Amino acid sequence: MPLPPSSRRVFLAATGAAAASVWIPRPVKGYAHTEVRAASLDDVGISKWEIDTPALCVDLDRLERNIAKMQAAVRKNGIATRPHAKTHKTAAIARLQLAAGAIGICTAKLGEAEALFAAGIEPLCMTTSNLSPRKIRRAMQLAKANRQFIQAVDAAGNARDLSAAAREAGVTADIVVDVAVGTRSGIPPGDDAVALAKLVDTLPNLKLRGLLSYDGGAQHVNGFAARKERALKGLEGNVETREAMKRAGLSTEIFSGGGTGTYSVQHLTPGFTDVQVGSYVFMDMQYLAIGSEDGDAVYKDFEPSLTVVATVLNNRFPGRLTTDAGAKALTLNVPRPGVVGEPGMDYNPGSDEFGVITFTEARRTYRMGDRIEMIVPHCDPVVNLYDQMYGVRGDKVEVVWPITARGRSQ
Amino acid sequence: MPLPPSSRRVFLAATGAAAASVWIPRPVKGYAHTEVRAASLDDVGISKWEIDTPALCVDLDRLERNIAKMQAAVRKNGIATRPHAKTHKTAAIARLQLAAGAIGICTAKLGEAEALFAAGIEPLCMTTSNLSPRKIRRAMQLAKANRQFIQAVDAAGNARDLSAAAREAGVTADIVVDVAVGTRSGIPPGDDAVALAKLVDTLPNLKLRGLLSYDGGAQHVNGFAARKERALKGLEGNVETREAMKRAGLSTEIFSGGGTGTYSVQHLTPGFTDVQVGSYVFMDMQYLAIGSEDGDAVYKDFEPSLTVVATVLNNRFPGRLTTDAGAKALTLNVPRPGVVGEPGMDYNPGSDEFGVITFTEARRTYRMGDRIEMIVPHCDPVVNLYDQMYGVRGDKVEVVWPITARGRSQ
Repeated sequence: MPLPPSSRRVFLAATGAAAASVWIPRPVKGYAHTEVRAASLDDVGISKWEIDTPALCVDLDRLERNIAKMQAAVRKNGIATRPHAKTHKTAAIARLQLAAGAIGICTAKLGEAEALFAAGIEPLCMTTSNLSPRKIRRAMQLAKANRQFIQAVDAAGNARDLSAAAREAGVTADIVVDVAVGTRSGIPPGDDAVALAKLVDTLPNLKLRGLLSYDGGAQHVNGFAARKERALKGLEGNVETREAMKRAGLSTEIFSGGGTGTYSVQHLTPGFTDVQVGSYVFMDMQYLAIGSEDGDAVYKDFEPSLTVVATVLNNRFPGRLTTDAGAKALTLNVPRPGVVGEPGMDYNPGSDEFGVITFTEARRTYRMGDRIEMIVPHCDPVVNLYDQMYGVRGDKVEVVWPITARGRSQ
Repeated sequence: MPLPPSSRRVFLAATGAAAASVWIPRPVKGYAHTEVRAASLDDVGISKWEIDTPALCVDLDRLERNIAKMQAAVRKNGIATRPHAKTHKTAAIARLQLAAGAIGICTAKLGEAEALFAAGIEPLCMTTSNLSPRKIRRAMQLAKANRQFIQAVDAAGNARDLSAAAREAGVTADIVVDVAVGTRSGIPPGDDAVALAKLVDTLPNLKLRGLLSYDGGAQHVNGFAARKERALKGLEGNVETREAMKRAGLSTEIFSGGGTGTYSVQHLTPGFTDVQVGSYVFMDMQYLAIGSEDGDAVYKDFEPSLTVVATVLNNRFPGRLTTDAGAKALTLNVPRPGVVGEPGMDYNPGSDEFGVITFTEARRTYRMGDRIEMIVPHCDPVVNLYDQMYGVRGDKVEVVWPITARGRSQ
């Protein structure tokens, strides 16, 4: 399909808003609220062990290998990637994914789509429905500025609201029907889902593009065989819905779902077009625990690239360290943070401001002020705590990326 | 003590940085990354049920009553408040606390102190030590700009580092010794702590102001009598340390600690000067559960003022609702979010992007698009997820406050 000409640059130029696609240091000195980012630029070139902590770091070699490996794997299987930006919220990483061959970028929230578009990302698919009149109006404004914006719908009333708002905005909105896998969101597969697709196809100012079918619960099923079975069986009703849509002459150009846990089997789902993989860029303690196809307890398809570097604040008591990275730096997700190089350490981030490490054996001694590095429990919510991410090659900071859509939950 | 003349305005004027004490809407239109805040200004005057969700709301009547009640209670007891900004991270609320009579504002992180100072808050006490050379340099720059900045120290080597950095920066830094209650941080009470205070008192470019003794663990002890006993007994060693400091002719002008759970008993600790109360402004499910002095299971001293408003995305299954507020909007702290007006509902925010409510009985029916409001599990980390807070009077948005120090964890 030929892509429509982009109106982003025209739109932004006309309205005086600068696209934040390149991160330009501000000339501000002093204690302006924006200075934290300008100050971070001074960090380019330093060792990652010198960054002020807690610091969110991504190993660029590993990140690049993860992106390349995912892209090669799904290409070999005859499908595509449409990576989910709810994980990284970072325009720079979306750009790497698109450059590697991704056909689009997903977002969970409208605010994420707006922020990424402002930073130059155009082929965007928002995977959650917008229900309130205000959000629908915002979504149609974005659709008007960005012809590559795709919206989800899972209810007939909502489809009619979208149609009316698209007409009012003077735009034809690209729509996918969100067909449920489970009970969380989406219209259940079957006749109602097909009827909704037909309704979207007939309503003015809407253009049906296909369907979404994301099975969040399948991603973390422990053990490859069980995960594969869940991923494929869970989508059987959705496959029937897609086939009924096709028989009815409706577009099934997009049949999207799957994630980091199921990317390697999702092409076995008939008609499937692309995987909405997110966590594979970073990995985390949760994904490391789901097990590999070869039976290994550790999921080794992708390399853990995301860490938080913290500082030891207290080493006074044997078998115990206090750090400056607690729940506000690492979240309360389980499994707990993994201390790099210290398999015998248990890291409790339960305090808001402090982490407490307990151990019986450590590989080295830790003094006050020493740095210590953790693999994060679950990458998505940890990334959402930080305004910037330090891109590290070896031990050296190569780039500091603003986390473009951090906190854009509305 | 006469306050030194403020150099903030001079400092900021000289460096071209504007103080963010008044929130001025930006003229930007379009999808610039900063627009989310400018757009929020359009929300002033609307109903809180129309705000795009998830939205962090504070009931201004309740907030004001909480601040007034706390101030009156400690004044009656002959001590002061030095409220902790790790809870609200919001200059506007710090200003309300100072206007009510607070003698200062605490911060947990250097970045918080920098951001609040840039927004016009001057009497600041950072309660955690800075250990790395870079952070110590930053702290001394802040001390130079803000003569009312007080820093904590809990180790002799660190005191020497602070002295050297203060000399290099050409400033005399105000210092409090952080004396531990428990094992998390601070120097244990006793001879070593007194020796550290003496060292601070003698080192060049440092000025000893007293000691901190915060017992985080005491705040959430269930039941008033047990909490009171823990709060007072836990500080016995710290009281002896303070008395030894006094006998040695060292400053004990500050003897600060305590929190929302112990504010009403902390004046019984000999020599105590002020409580570092934080959560009382908002309250949360955790503090509501600690029990009142009158034996009630609910802690009623302060009113819950902080809520998250969410939207119902799915009502298709009986006894089940999906909302747009998950772990990225409410955190995973326990007890879980409390649904306002629906005591029979259980709210599971375990999904990153979605909340799942289950119930057998509800007081009303919920359609897709309806709003629903939750008291937050634990206020501090929830506030840290949002860029702005909607100040609501009745059901009407009166003000939108930027959360000045959000994410300033470094």
